[in-house]
Amino acid sequence: MLITPGKLLSQINSPDDLKKLDKVQLVQLCEELRQFIIDNVSVYGGHFGASLGVVELTVALHYIFNTPYDQLVWDVGHQAYGHKILTGRRDEFHTNRVYGGLSGFPKMKESKYDAFGVGHSSTSVSAALGMAVASKYLNQNDRQHIAVIGDGALTGGIAFEGLNHAGVSDTNILIILNDNCMSIDPNVGALKDYLTDITTSRTYNKLKDDVWKLLGKLSNFGKSAQEIVSKVETGIKSTLLSQSNLFESLNLRYFGPVDGHDIDHLVTILGDLKNIKGPKILHCVTVKGKGYGPAEKGNATTWHAPGTFDKITGEIFKKVYEKPQPPKYQDVFGHTLVELAKANEKIVGITPAMPSGSSMNIMMKEMPDRAFDVGIAEQHAVTFSAGLATQGLIPFCNIYSSFMQRAYDQVVHDVCIQNLPVNFCLDRAGFAGADGPTHHGAYDVAFFRCVPNMIIASPMNESELRNLMYTAQLPRNGKAFTIRYPRGQGVMPEWRTPMEEIKVGSGRKIKEGEDVAILTIGHIGNYAVEVCERLEKRGIEIAHYDMRFVKPIDEELLHEVFSKFSKVITVEDGCIQGGFGSAVLEFMADNNYHAEIKRLGIPDRIVEHGEQIELHRECGFDPDGIEKAVIQMLETVNTI
Amino acid sequence: MLITPGKLLSQINSPDDLKKLDKVQLVQLCEELRQFIIDNVSVYGGHFGASLGVVELTVALHYIFNTPYDQLVWDVGHQAYGHKILTGRRDEFHTNRVYGGLSGFPKMKESKYDAFGVGHSSTSVSAALGMAVASKYLNQNDRQHIAVIGDGALTGGIAFEGLNHAGVSDTNILIILNDNCMSIDPNVGALKDYLTDITTSRTYNKLKDDVWKLLGKLSNFGKSAQEIVSKVETGIKSTLLSQSNLFESLNLRYFGPVDGHDIDHLVTILGDLKNIKGPKILHCVTVKGKGYGPAEKGNATTWHAPGTFDKITGEIFKKVYEKPQPPKYQDVFGHTLVELAKANEKIVGITPAMPSGSSMNIMMKEMPDRAFDVGIAEQHAVTFSAGLATQGLIPFCNIYSSFMQRAYDQVVHDVCIQNLPVNFCLDRAGFAGADGPTHHGAYDVAFFRCVPNMIIASPMNESELRNLMYTAQLPRNGKAFTIRYPRGQGVMPEWRTPMEEIKVGSGRKIKEGEDVAILTIGHIGNYAVEVCERLEKRGIEIAHYDMRFVKPIDEELLHEVFSKFSKVITVEDGCIQGGFGSAVLEFMADNNYHAEIKRLGIPDRIVEHGEQIELHRECGFDPDGIEKAVIQMLETVNTI
Repeated sequence: MLITPGKLLSQINSPDDLKKLDKVQLVQLCEELRQFIIDNVSVYGGHFGASLGVVELTVALHYIFNTPYDQLVWDVGHQAYGHKILTGRRDEFHTNRVYGGLSGFPKMKESKYDAFGVGHSSTSVSAALGMAVASKYLNQNDRQHIAVIGDGALTGGIAFEGLNHAGVSDTNILIILNDNCMSIDPNVGALKDYLTDITTSRTYNKLKDDVWKLLGKLSNFGKSAQEIVSKVETGIKSTLLSQSNLFESLNLRYFGPVDGHDIDHLVTILGDLKNIKGPKILHCVTVKGKGYGPAEKGNATTWHAPGTFDKITGEIFKKVYEKPQPPKYQDVFGHTLVELAKANEKIVGITPAMPSGSSMNIMMKEMPDRAFDVGIAEQHAVTFSAGLATQGLIPFCNIYSSFMQRAYDQVVHDVCIQNLPVNFCLDRAGFAGADGPTHHGAYDVAFFRCVPNMIIASPMNESELRNLMYTAQLPRNGKAFTIRYPRGQGVMPEWRTPMEEIKVGSGRKIKEGEDVAILTIGHIGNYAVEVCERLEKRGIEIAHYDMRFVKPIDEELLHEVFSKFSKVITVEDGCIQGGFGSAVLEFMADNNYHAEIKRLGIPDRIVEHGEQIELHRECGFDPDGIEKAVIQMLETVNTI
Repeated sequence: MLITPGKLLSQINSPDDLKKLDKVQLVQLCEELRQFIIDNVSVYGGHFGASLGVVELTVALHYIFNTPYDQLVWDVGHQAYGHKILTGRRDEFHTNRVYGGLSGFPKMKESKYDAFGVGHSSTSVSAALGMAVASKYLNQNDRQHIAVIGDGALTGGIAFEGLNHAGVSDTNILIILNDNCMSIDPNVGALKDYLTDITTSRTYNKLKDDVWKLLGKLSNFGKSAQEIVSKVETGIKSTLLSQSNLFESLNLRYFGPVDGHDIDHLVTILGDLKNIKGPKILHCVTVKGKGYGPAEKGNATTWHAPGTFDKITGEIFKKVYEKPQPPKYQDVFGHTLVELAKANEKIVGITPAMPSGSSMNIMMKEMPDRAFDVGIAEQHAVTFSAGLATQGLIPFCNIYSSFMQRAYDQVVHDVCIQNLPVNFCLDRAGFAGADGPTHHGAYDVAFFRCVPNMIIASPMNESELRNLMYTAQLPRNGKAFTIRYPRGQGVMPEWRTPMEEIKVGSGRKIKEGEDVAILTIGHIGNYAVEVCERLEKRGIEIAHYDMRFVKPIDEELLHEVFSKFSKVITVEDGCIQGGFGSAVLEFMADNNYHAEIKRLGIPDRIVEHGEQIELHRECGFDPDGIEKAVIQMLETVNTI
């Protein structure tokens, strides 16, 4: 079902068409754009609230600025649906986030209007500043550079690093602060309070008002007082009102706060800002989900990416299953953490702005003094966890695998060099699915495996996850303990199994067999189970080992494997350069084993978005791919 | 030569002894402590200016606070010499930074007074906050937590992430801003300007003064005016003066600026702050090198870590050599970049606060509009470089290998996923030497090798570095280009060789031989040359290949190697988990080669500080170690 755009929107094939509209028509265009997003997302799914919140801003930006010559960087990019629709991608918008279709995020190779690819937060100021500095150097002095960043993204350290440079950059960069008090979950931290303060007049506007009032009163005191008033106005006022703002402290001219849904005013003010030199910030107050009642009134987190829904009633569709389904790994994590924390008072939980995504919100609700949402601040989350660990607490720091890249130094420098017992739960490990390459957790095994004092494990199912978490909270002598697991469902509808310790560094034999052994790590091992079953039906018995730990790897088990098998396949939902398979190769080299090895996993290229199984298939490690690899290996003559 | 401490200092074996002193004696103690640092560093070398700058602060902190129960986190740690001397390490202080001796940085396992290990900057707020939150949870409500952070370190994003959390944390954390306008080089950025502003009264104090003056004048206007004055005082004043500060915006109570060299005042104010609840910041203005004339008056960067010097004249000792010496790789980088940039106007340079350390200062001086010091902000440096690259410029972003860990996500997410042609020069790759484990560039090959669209090369000498840099600035179709090289001297006194393109992914055969082949990457290859020469004298001819590129690895050359040799040794100044040697193993597995392989490199444990050659020896890949490995391999019976 293709969605029909409204009358005005149907004529907008590029921002050039948009510029042909009369300013008064923009209200209608905004309405149509909003409706088109609602119509599409309700049917096809995707991110929702963020894009609805910036409909007016998106229209105003493309109306006023000369994109793509003027360069527009959307931070994170959840909010860029309107941008995509207005920049030539309206008619393919229904392919959004689908395998082979449009990306859910701005992406340079998808459109010249996407000045910079995004996905992770807080990069827009740095990227736009790089462009602006380049334009200055290239004497393109008329070129404008705009970063649109949310109040949540602004808490990420790199955003502050960018602001610190922008303030002394002598460029015309415009930073638009899209302030909706939310990231995916409600934003937290002192900065958020400050933004709320200046928006609600509690401080900034109160200050302004107080001074105005004072000046007013003074003017009643006759000529001499009026002279003072005048002096005050010229002297203090500007200093006082300008420098009193956090952004002005960083030498960014601050404008606002303005209503981000007043298209008329936005067009005017953006037109004005275009002509103001120097680095500047426009503070726009917006509402996530604006213009769609259920989203505006309901839970903003739910409506961040609601899946498909009935656009009339606002009812979010849920799949109905005949049989009980396995839970998501996320839920197993969240409930198990609370279960463990009830029994062990040393356990604390940390999430950088992903309470609902990681299910840390379960602990935050049940034990608010023991679970911390620190905002979009992965680096801080890790070093904060290290600080907690120095005091004998047992932190479970849950970070999406690809976001952990943000805190790599902190893991090396603050946790592992000091040999502190911090537990990391890496959610969304392996292919993230529809979010695509920025969110794939492809590299974690490789980038953690090289770090000393690091344990890396991955559960093949819910029960294993619970046992690994149980093990991670037992006293141990230092070492970080990383547990990686994928996005989505496990395999055990009855998942609340009793917990028991797993010996660190121990794998397990899933199946005996001949000729070929498959070594797997993590959930992807279930594919191997399926392959073994298929082959069994054809009378082929191969062996399967779930190694469970990448580091330390189970050397005893590997000695068993390589003593018996000269043909081995490794399977991992992670990069094959330096990953689990490479750990096996290193064991072989160190022990002088020689076998034929086929490593299956994520190849050395950027894999785009799609369903996880589609991507596994593309990379040759879905069940068919694994089966094929086994058959090929069985058919080769042994060269060892 | 052991340095004799002054009379008071000789009695201080712990902060308990310090507390026995009368407050008036502290001036003398400061003098003695300062002299002891001067005496030691002038003879034994080490970091200098930073520790002199915080002598009074160090004494005051240990005098007022109950360390180690109260916890003190020094950011970076260059400034912690006084702290070490006062906390029981006076008599071993001459072993500072020496193999087997004291660490140049605070280190948890060295002393209970070192609440958190440091080395990389900007972590102190997060770490101290973790401790403070833990203490709160553990009902240790009398416990104090102090982070001492420089104005340079404050520009690092994680510091801001920490402040954002601290402001809403409801802990008593005290952040001491040690503001000396310096990191190693002069600090840069808008924040620095702001701090200068509030210190020099240009804004903050001017504002204060203006308001006071106004209120003064108003009081001449009779009773009604006085009423207003009173209202103003109670009403506006507090809001106005408190909220106008950047730190107050983040809900941190701001105190200062105070003179960081006034021990008397410091003791008083720290005593007061101890009793003030909530998160707070004390702004101390200090002078790097304070109390040592040549350092105070001279170049602060030079006196950051001057090496040994004549403490009377301030003359810094330089080694005198009979023969011309090879240059440092750093200098080759700096001069070559300028040489290339003169011929290619697209080249720009970026350094995060390491202009002198990386030699980017050469380009900054010669081409100030084309070379950027962005402050301690590695993440921003990388994404900023990506932004520059989108506009067709050719960035050379120079970051120390271990600091690159800070920007890992930006390399993956902003550069490699987008396939942007950014050049990374990783200085201090391999063992950093005396700076120790926080600064060892041990993991770069492993953590970059797993990332798609990444070229990784390492030069064996100066000429190779120049050729690699020349190659990196030629037009290419995307891909990041990483060139890693160690701290210190190369091997070619005549290093200004004509530059030529090196085919990406091509290695070179250094020496033909029999039985065993050594494969090396980078400067460490010179050890292999030495080993080959030694063995030649004994009549043993082994082969040596300088692979030059880890990625893409020279497959043609490796086919040659593995067709001919069944015994191969790989040598790298990097971690052996997932590193260069593992890349060779992966090639073998993918091509079904079977050889006996010995991988030499940094083992899977934290290696402490020492001279580079001492550490190579410890890890078995100095010339002796390599030779031994060759002999052992020659003696084994071939099992293939």
